[in-house]
Amino acid sequence: MLDTIRRGFERFGFVPVETPVFELSDVLLTKTGGDTEKQVYFVQSTGALKQSDAGADKRPELALRFDLTVPLARYVAEHEAQLNFPFRRYQIQRAYRGERNQKGRYREFYQCDIDVIGKDQLPLAYDAEIPAVIHTIFRELAFGPFTIRLNNRKLLRGVLGALGVADDRQEAVLHEIDRLDKQPRAEIEARLTGEGFGLEPGSVGKLLDLLTGHRGDARGAFAALRRLDSNPVLVEGIAELEYVYDGTLALGVSEKALQVDLAIVRGLDYYTGTIYETLLDDHPRLGSICSGGRYDNLASHYTKSKLPGVGISIGATRLFSQLLELDLVGGRGSVAHALVLAVEPALAAECARLAAELRDAGLNIEVYGGDDKLGKQLKYADRSQIPLAVLYGSRERDAGIVKLKDLRAGAAIREHDVPRGDLVTRVKQLVG
Amino acid sequence: MLDTIRRGFERFGFVPVETPVFELSDVLLTKTGGDTEKQVYFVQSTGALKQSDAGADKRPELALRFDLTVPLARYVAEHEAQLNFPFRRYQIQRAYRGERNQKGRYREFYQCDIDVIGKDQLPLAYDAEIPAVIHTIFRELAFGPFTIRLNNRKLLRGVLGALGVADDRQEAVLHEIDRLDKQPRAEIEARLTGEGFGLEPGSVGKLLDLLTGHRGDARGAFAALRRLDSNPVLVEGIAELEYVYDGTLALGVSEKALQVDLAIVRGLDYYTGTIYETLLDDHPRLGSICSGGRYDNLASHYTKSKLPGVGISIGATRLFSQLLELDLVGGRGSVAHALVLAVEPALAAECARLAAELRDAGLNIEVYGGDDKLGKQLKYADRSQIPLAVLYGSRERDAGIVKLKDLRAGAAIREHDVPRGDLVTRVKQLVG
Repeated sequence: MLDTIRRGFERFGFVPVETPVFELSDVLLTKTGGDTEKQVYFVQSTGALKQSDAGADKRPELALRFDLTVPLARYVAEHEAQLNFPFRRYQIQRAYRGERNQKGRYREFYQCDIDVIGKDQLPLAYDAEIPAVIHTIFRELAFGPFTIRLNNRKLLRGVLGALGVADDRQEAVLHEIDRLDKQPRAEIEARLTGEGFGLEPGSVGKLLDLLTGHRGDARGAFAALRRLDSNPVLVEGIAELEYVYDGTLALGVSEKALQVDLAIVRGLDYYTGTIYETLLDDHPRLGSICSGGRYDNLASHYTKSKLPGVGISIGATRLFSQLLELDLVGGRGSVAHALVLAVEPALAAECARLAAELRDAGLNIEVYGGDDKLGKQLKYADRSQIPLAVLYGSRERDAGIVKLKDLRAGAAIREHDVPRGDLVTRVKQLVG
Repeated sequence: MLDTIRRGFERFGFVPVETPVFELSDVLLTKTGGDTEKQVYFVQSTGALKQSDAGADKRPELALRFDLTVPLARYVAEHEAQLNFPFRRYQIQRAYRGERNQKGRYREFYQCDIDVIGKDQLPLAYDAEIPAVIHTIFRELAFGPFTIRLNNRKLLRGVLGALGVADDRQEAVLHEIDRLDKQPRAEIEARLTGEGFGLEPGSVGKLLDLLTGHRGDARGAFAALRRLDSNPVLVEGIAELEYVYDGTLALGVSEKALQVDLAIVRGLDYYTGTIYETLLDDHPRLGSICSGGRYDNLASHYTKSKLPGVGISIGATRLFSQLLELDLVGGRGSVAHALVLAVEPALAAECARLAAELRDAGLNIEVYGGDDKLGKQLKYADRSQIPLAVLYGSRERDAGIVKLKDLRAGAAIREHDVPRGDLVTRVKQLVG
């Protein structure tokens, strides 16, 4: 799965970056509020540990990265002078959070991120490319049909403005909208019209109708948005979303797999324009398995340059464990395509040559060591899920053949006597 | 480099295992003495940190792995009932040591390990397979000629016994022999015949002659060993080393790349039979770049089962940094094979189709976003070391061609006008 993701990223010319697992605690915690800080793993070598016994409650100097975004920001700020912008990097590494070990929560997990970072500005064309990358990868992963959902934060702000929600209340209202997937609409409507918000029932109804009424009907959504009282943020938001939607279609993503969904919000304040979510059509309860968006400034804490970017992230560990549970992916089975059995010690060198020939043809070949009985060797192959056993004893040598035993449950023919010269071709036909 | 190593491991049917970066401190430090303990990174989440302020000097519960051997032992002991022995696993992961950051020392570094673990016993055939794996990988890595050196710990003990060194002094004498690479022979000879050891000058001379006199002459070494006063450990050691040497040759490793070297010792007490080192012939000062050996019992601290094994380890980070310094490896250059330029906005969709065609043919293709001048786009490609630019404007469209610009320094022909239908074939010819 990680290989497929990596290949997909590289197909679009993203460059791999790996960063150290340690970040300075001060860098890591510049931006984050209380919740993330509770989950950070701090690190101390034995020496440092002793010193801190004296100094008491000083925070350790190093901590483990809890995502790949902070390391990216630190990396880009640090290497700004050498980088070639727009800088396109992918990063597939583990991140760490000090959570209790429980279902769906991991203390150590793989993240697979791509981002394109511009200097001063970044064309919207890159916002259209991100879903095309994701589309390529999820098609190849073949977890079943999926939908990439698109929205735009500016557009959401514009809509709220058009419906009379004051700027300083918009974030709180978006927070409520974000719950539309999880809570009954009536509850959210009640809160928005209740004391806390005090919005007009008419506006709230219109807002929720607009945001939820056009899923899968992008043109209808754009038309409805254009009927609102206009404001500059709204106009910009509509233009951006329409550009990204059309641009993504032009990159070969099918209309079925791409959906404008005005009700997605993405929790983080971080995003400022385009936002993405990805759902498996047959498993909506998994939620978004791949999310991201456009941000105005990646690294404001570390550099004065303005570095706008757009990116997306696949939480591979969580996704894989969910798919395992649903039986949508299996274990990997055996690495080896075949096991060469140890039949007669005198033929060990010739068996080694068979193995080398098969390896040269790109097959993964294991050779059994020692002189166990053939039954035990075959049992080992079976338990290791190796599909094919290669048997070459003096009887085979004298006949100029090699015996292949197909060990797979469904094999129609169990044994094949193949001419020595056809070995590679036949093994490739069977298991290559 | 990691890809090549991984592919080599899989060619021989080794199964990938990844283990968590955290181990329980108690598990990690079961075996290790003072030096390693000083280098361990302990880990605490914010919550645990607060508690420990109260509890004072308790050791944190978790620590980062400092090698891949302890995690392997813990893993095998934990999953013993499910594993199929001989268990062949490879592990390519990072390990962590709390060292000061300095040249050649890393706080975070890649290890690439293979091991074959038997239950109760493990045939010597696996000792012969390990160098064959390493031979395949280093040939493919193409860092120049290399030599895998073989020796055997039992044999060394047997030789010392034959020359009258008492059992309880042998470890100390081996420690001196281990220095033969770094110190003048005369110094070592002086110490061995001096007060500390008090060995007979005749025996010491004979010993050092024997151990250093037969490099690259395995048959001569075996003959010389057989002329010694015999003892059971010596006999067993000679038989094992000869079996492994012949077995490795039979697996296709050339005599040039395989050397019996009676003077290699490997520092760790851990090894009990076969030992391996690997040197780059043109860069002996790098020392062994890949070492390992046979051990009697992997996991005696964690299980009562006897689990003998044989393995080898490539310290990839250290090796790569040394090769970089010697200019023997370069950076990776660009991931993308070609950059599709943004010539005219009206043709963006058609350019996207070109890119998709090239990607479907297995090429990594980047598309330039936005409407910068062509000169700026080409400069970006050049700085990113992308070898080829693909240019498709209305002039090309009308002529039914695509223009390819070869950006590499040595390109004989800078520009190619290729028929639209030949695009994939021609791009593959140029940079595929």
